[in-house]
Amino acid sequence: MTKITKAACIGGGVIGGAWAARFILAGVDVNMFDPHPEAKRIIGEVMANAERAYAMLTMAPLPKKGALTFCNSIEEAVQNAEWIQESVPERLALKRGVLTEIDAAASPDALIGSSTSGLMPSDLQAEMKHPERMFVAHPYNPVYLLPLVELVGGKKTSKETIARAGVAVEQIGMKGVVIAKEIEAFVGDRLLEALWREALWLIQDDICDTETLDNVMRYSFGMRWAQMGLFETYRIAGGEAGMRHFLAQFGPCLKWPWTKFTDVVDLDDALVEKIGAQSDEQAAGRSIRELERIRDENLVGIMHALKSGDGGKGWGAGKLLAEFEQRLWANAEKPQADPGQAEPIRILDTKVNAAWVDYNGHMTEHRYLQVFGDTSDGLLRLIGVDLDYVKNGHSYYTVETHIRNLGEARLGDALYSTCQILSHDEKRLHIFSTIYNAASSEPVATAEQMLLHVDSKASKAVPALPEVIGKVKAIAEAHATLPKPEGVGRSVGQRR
Amino acid sequence: MTKITKAACIGGGVIGGAWAARFILAGVDVNMFDPHPEAKRIIGEVMANAERAYAMLTMAPLPKKGALTFCNSIEEAVQNAEWIQESVPERLALKRGVLTEIDAAASPDALIGSSTSGLMPSDLQAEMKHPERMFVAHPYNPVYLLPLVELVGGKKTSKETIARAGVAVEQIGMKGVVIAKEIEAFVGDRLLEALWREALWLIQDDICDTETLDNVMRYSFGMRWAQMGLFETYRIAGGEAGMRHFLAQFGPCLKWPWTKFTDVVDLDDALVEKIGAQSDEQAAGRSIRELERIRDENLVGIMHALKSGDGGKGWGAGKLLAEFEQRLWANAEKPQADPGQAEPIRILDTKVNAAWVDYNGHMTEHRYLQVFGDTSDGLLRLIGVDLDYVKNGHSYYTVETHIRNLGEARLGDALYSTCQILSHDEKRLHIFSTIYNAASSEPVATAEQMLLHVDSKASKAVPALPEVIGKVKAIAEAHATLPKPEGVGRSVGQRR
Repeated sequence: MTKITKAACIGGGVIGGAWAARFILAGVDVNMFDPHPEAKRIIGEVMANAERAYAMLTMAPLPKKGALTFCNSIEEAVQNAEWIQESVPERLALKRGVLTEIDAAASPDALIGSSTSGLMPSDLQAEMKHPERMFVAHPYNPVYLLPLVELVGGKKTSKETIARAGVAVEQIGMKGVVIAKEIEAFVGDRLLEALWREALWLIQDDICDTETLDNVMRYSFGMRWAQMGLFETYRIAGGEAGMRHFLAQFGPCLKWPWTKFTDVVDLDDALVEKIGAQSDEQAAGRSIRELERIRDENLVGIMHALKSGDGGKGWGAGKLLAEFEQRLWANAEKPQADPGQAEPIRILDTKVNAAWVDYNGHMTEHRYLQVFGDTSDGLLRLIGVDLDYVKNGHSYYTVETHIRNLGEARLGDALYSTCQILSHDEKRLHIFSTIYNAASSEPVATAEQMLLHVDSKASKAVPALPEVIGKVKAIAEAHATLPKPEGVGRSVGQRR
Repeated sequence: MTKITKAACIGGGVIGGAWAARFILAGVDVNMFDPHPEAKRIIGEVMANAERAYAMLTMAPLPKKGALTFCNSIEEAVQNAEWIQESVPERLALKRGVLTEIDAAASPDALIGSSTSGLMPSDLQAEMKHPERMFVAHPYNPVYLLPLVELVGGKKTSKETIARAGVAVEQIGMKGVVIAKEIEAFVGDRLLEALWREALWLIQDDICDTETLDNVMRYSFGMRWAQMGLFETYRIAGGEAGMRHFLAQFGPCLKWPWTKFTDVVDLDDALVEKIGAQSDEQAAGRSIRELERIRDENLVGIMHALKSGDGGKGWGAGKLLAEFEQRLWANAEKPQADPGQAEPIRILDTKVNAAWVDYNGHMTEHRYLQVFGDTSDGLLRLIGVDLDYVKNGHSYYTVETHIRNLGEARLGDALYSTCQILSHDEKRLHIFSTIYNAASSEPVATAEQMLLHVDSKASKAVPALPEVIGKVKAIAEAHATLPKPEGVGRSVGQRR
């Protein structure tokens, strides 16, 4: 196991800054070296985007943020770092120089990744004293949200290095995909460039404009590729006869247009200006910040959708997210429900997600119950009803809920929730949760709920296990001294 | 306006069958001609997939399904059809022959679309007597879910035809994207082929296997392309300086790998077998049906995510879906809340969506409230609180909800909901909704709710407008004779 506690980021632009954000949000300290005069501002902006995205992406408990330290030299930055990520501009000589400096000062077993999107690791590592620990770790923009890292070893990279790197990126919620042989631009950028080359021809020859081309992608195969990629999609297209049938059927038919347009288009001033003008029109006045916000919210939404994929088991990037969250829950310091503490337990901090609002920007009715459900789940984890408990066939089911909507929550509002135990017996757990607006500390909704302990296979109520009852009791005794919250025992429409 | 009431599908394989499904589910009658001995079976399977997908995709009221009639000749099939879609195999001579027959028998102002994925409309229409009404309408698999149709006119196609076709496809929830000039394979398949060509090289040269390549796509840029396409994504990458800056910065750097691998790979037996074997391994035993199910559920999930995009206003394919649903609601026959009818009003028919279940396949707590919310929205439409009423600044807000969970709903279960008015005054509406399992007619959950009529700008309770109160009163008077439902007035944990 390679557990990273300190990382060094050499170069802190949009890519390096987002690597730093990934590490910091996963609880890893980061040493940053970037001589750019505006490095702090740029990294600050990337961090803000990343924090905003994570607040929407997951309700799982992120660890305490890692510390960000700006260093004055590469040597200083790499001290004690277990992962060093180089993200300096895309020039071989520059990168080699930086890697030589890293090589000299880094701990011998540190992992050294390069963010290069095109240079071959063998070329980068050629002059290093310990090249076996160096590899390409190529991420995709926005790095704080897209989980892919292409891991590419050079001639001198050890197998162990690639294996350790694959494990290490899991810690920051990423998916390390190992590329078998190095070539310029690896796999992702090869595909991107092929499409890009063809797209430029289509624009140059006025077959369509940029908006039409984008629409062709996003209303169709873009949604296929978000979940299955190319080959699995075509496997389905081949029907029961499978991939070989698809190739036999569509191979020849796809072949003839291949012979065309394989020259390289000349990206001259006229074409640049044409694309620039079409792109301006397409953006219809939206700023880059606005497009970035929309993109990030959509990415979060797509990953959430995939998290429910395959009948709730998760699919692709959504399954990866679910696994990341399970580790976060497992690693989280159990919030101590101090039995002596006579106050409702603060369970959850979240933000109103883009997918949670209606066209007015108000949080939709059922999303309140989603937050209340996550709140009761949080309480259950506190009393020992965790994933293992559930897997062993016991759980609590909600049988009754009374919600009062007291205020409005709007897109981006920070919220937190608390939970109080009203009463309990061996099967029943009677709780009262409140969602507060974090800025005003005003309650926006309350939920009184009855949970029933069940044998989930038999689908019938059974007593909870003694260790759970013990924990419930300790909290309930402390909460017994609390005043009964306003609204408890209300029926709908009851006069005060 | 081109309102289609009858369509003809000539050729009913996976593509033609899905066109038929789109029409039928949008209330359009379809005449089908396909001499294939198994045509009925294949179309039946596509219809079943499409109906399953639509049940997840939307809770909006689909019109009464169109009738499907199998015809014995093209001549018979095209009678009175306003849209004729040709989806026969991809051979020029065959398609020309079929189009000649269509041309001779069709009404002079019928729209004639071809599903060809590569042939030029000018070649297809060359021998037609009325070529001005013929065009390419190229859809993407699965046609019943992906909304894109590339609309490509030939030399003799009239502008009016393309304009009418664009409007007509909206009726079946599709997005007609007009391609400015005809070329072989149009726009989407050009892009697909470029990527495909590059992908085949990467597999042939063992840079990666098919699963790695798919992972590279789906963990990264696939999720970008599902929402924004190529150019708008790169516009963001260019930062505040925009598209021209991106081209200046990345153009040269992307250029050198372009010069490679532009030859055509030889898709020989060895390569076919290699891809086939890797694809088998990647599928890990999942059948095509299983992959198809997962793909369709994910597509629905992605479109739902995009429907919430841009702060609830909708984005891309999600915005298109929202607009389609608005038309469905607007066109739906208002279910007559017969004031004389003394029974709860049946509001909603739906299915338990893949995105609604937990890893056990049970419907998640808050999704019940989502269905109850859609149920109260349905009641509100019945009493005149529709989109216009809301746009004019009035609405009903839910202020209090009491839910009882009585049973379990599982993935794919058909559900329906009913709603009953318990009491009302000029500001308040006290209702009771029930969700039933459609197979057993057993209730799975009930909700008692208090809604308050508000001035949504001032965020304060005000009396409803007289026409709304009138409709509420008529229903409430009929419902007054109903027995009080079990559970009304309950508080949480109250003994029976």
